[in-house]
Amino acid sequence: MDVRGEIDRILSFLERFMEDYGYGGFVLGISGGVDSAAVAGLLVRLVPPGRIRALILPERDSNPESVEHAKLVCETFGLDCEVRNITPILKKLGIYSLQPPATFVPYRVKKEYALKKWAQKGGEMAYELDIEEKGDEEFRKGVAYYRAKHRVRMCVLYMEAELRGYAVAGTTNRTEWLTGLYVKWGDDATDVEPLLHLYKSEVFELARALGVPKEVVEKPPSPDLIPGLTDEMAFGMSYMELDGILKAIEDGGDLSRFEKGKVERAKRLLRLGKRRNVRMVSLERV
Amino acid sequence: MDVRGEIDRILSFLERFMEDYGYGGFVLGISGGVDSAAVAGLLVRLVPPGRIRALILPERDSNPESVEHAKLVCETFGLDCEVRNITPILKKLGIYSLQPPATFVPYRVKKEYALKKWAQKGGEMAYELDIEEKGDEEFRKGVAYYRAKHRVRMCVLYMEAELRGYAVAGTTNRTEWLTGLYVKWGDDATDVEPLLHLYKSEVFELARALGVPKEVVEKPPSPDLIPGLTDEMAFGMSYMELDGILKAIEDGGDLSRFEKGKVERAKRLLRLGKRRNVRMVSLERV
Repeated sequence: MDVRGEIDRILSFLERFMEDYGYGGFVLGISGGVDSAAVAGLLVRLVPPGRIRALILPERDSNPESVEHAKLVCETFGLDCEVRNITPILKKLGIYSLQPPATFVPYRVKKEYALKKWAQKGGEMAYELDIEEKGDEEFRKGVAYYRAKHRVRMCVLYMEAELRGYAVAGTTNRTEWLTGLYVKWGDDATDVEPLLHLYKSEVFELARALGVPKEVVEKPPSPDLIPGLTDEMAFGMSYMELDGILKAIEDGGDLSRFEKGKVERAKRLLRLGKRRNVRMVSLERV
Repeated sequence: MDVRGEIDRILSFLERFMEDYGYGGFVLGISGGVDSAAVAGLLVRLVPPGRIRALILPERDSNPESVEHAKLVCETFGLDCEVRNITPILKKLGIYSLQPPATFVPYRVKKEYALKKWAQKGGEMAYELDIEEKGDEEFRKGVAYYRAKHRVRMCVLYMEAELRGYAVAGTTNRTEWLTGLYVKWGDDATDVEPLLHLYKSEVFELARALGVPKEVVEKPPSPDLIPGLTDEMAFGMSYMELDGILKAIEDGGDLSRFEKGKVERAKRLLRLGKRRNVRMVSLERV
């Protein structure tokens, strides 16, 4: 990838987007991960920092490190940011009552608990149960619990955007989009998606070129929705492997150079991605 | 419209939808309006009432009559329903602080206040400002205030659906969809839309045939998001007129039989509908 060329292409696209729809700026949720950091790095090259409303939205079970990384991203790019804890909203919604009480439980313990549960559900299989809306009652509670977080974040981001006539900038990349690694009507509910055409491995390249801090680029990507669970645990392989296979499938390239089991898994992930993307199914008018 | 044939066609579609995606039932928000009542009437003909989770989700500023009508709909169709007031969630989100304090203000007074504000903003023009994300600071507060309500409802409906492996049934009709009369990532954020292919005037026909109570069919449609504001105030004409014009435009029919100003307004509403539907704008992969 020609990283400099790609940055220019995205900036022109975002400029045209603002003109076409008359948005005065952007609202961006900063998670502490590489995708939102890359989008922050793009936006500060497009508009003055005063027209970017950056929000850090942790909740009770977030990894404390995420907030630190999110703050570091904002400092790096000279963005004022507000940390707003969404726990009180989620409490009123009732999501914490779906899980064992954990208010004073350290993150390390929550992580051990979640990882044990994940292993019990058969590891990668849990991702399939999740997307296919299956699993037993306890599993479904876990699904409802984690998805509500991103949906509430979306509500907060849109409220902030609407107060200012700003657009909500999304941070979904192509790998996530194709494989369904997002919350339907949560982090996919945005006005504009500057990274949607790029595989995760390309987002890493972009992030480095944009000056995203190395702490953020080098840690294992995680949605930070269930303590300790990383993206690669859901996929059952690394992003490098997955993106390689996805690109080969897209380009009609040779798949024999990849492990057979992983190619099958990648194809299954593509089917799951289509399943997650089912929305507003309707009849044609006759 | 052959109403009986149309009901059968929708029921077959919903049956196939459940099979295709493996959903065990439906979650439906009942507003007290004709669209959700019609969907309730369809669903009870498809699955046993025990597989329909009906929720009534009022908030501080809802019309008290809406809850009564919603309960009546559930009784009529033999549905158990839960009334869950979403005010505490919206409070924590901070939307009420965008508006003057109104906890003990009667609905009639709220309505007078809102209607006065609407007139100040130039009536129908307010709808354009809303969709184009324009208007002054005070206006933007009103926009953020009302939209958050439907988004929080969506969060509640999905939580309920995910706990059960159910689909969220939408209630958007074709008139609303074409003209943008919905909240982006709010009432449009669903799994299936049984009415999306039908104009509002056809939904009325359907509702009558399905046995929706006359109190619900005969009252002026309103999103019940801003006290007193009806759909027809946003459109600047009746649903009968608007649907007639929209259908004529769709079929390439004669427009000269309609008032010229209303045809212009309908065309403008179609453009606004396209604008509201802007979402996840992204670059193509090169």
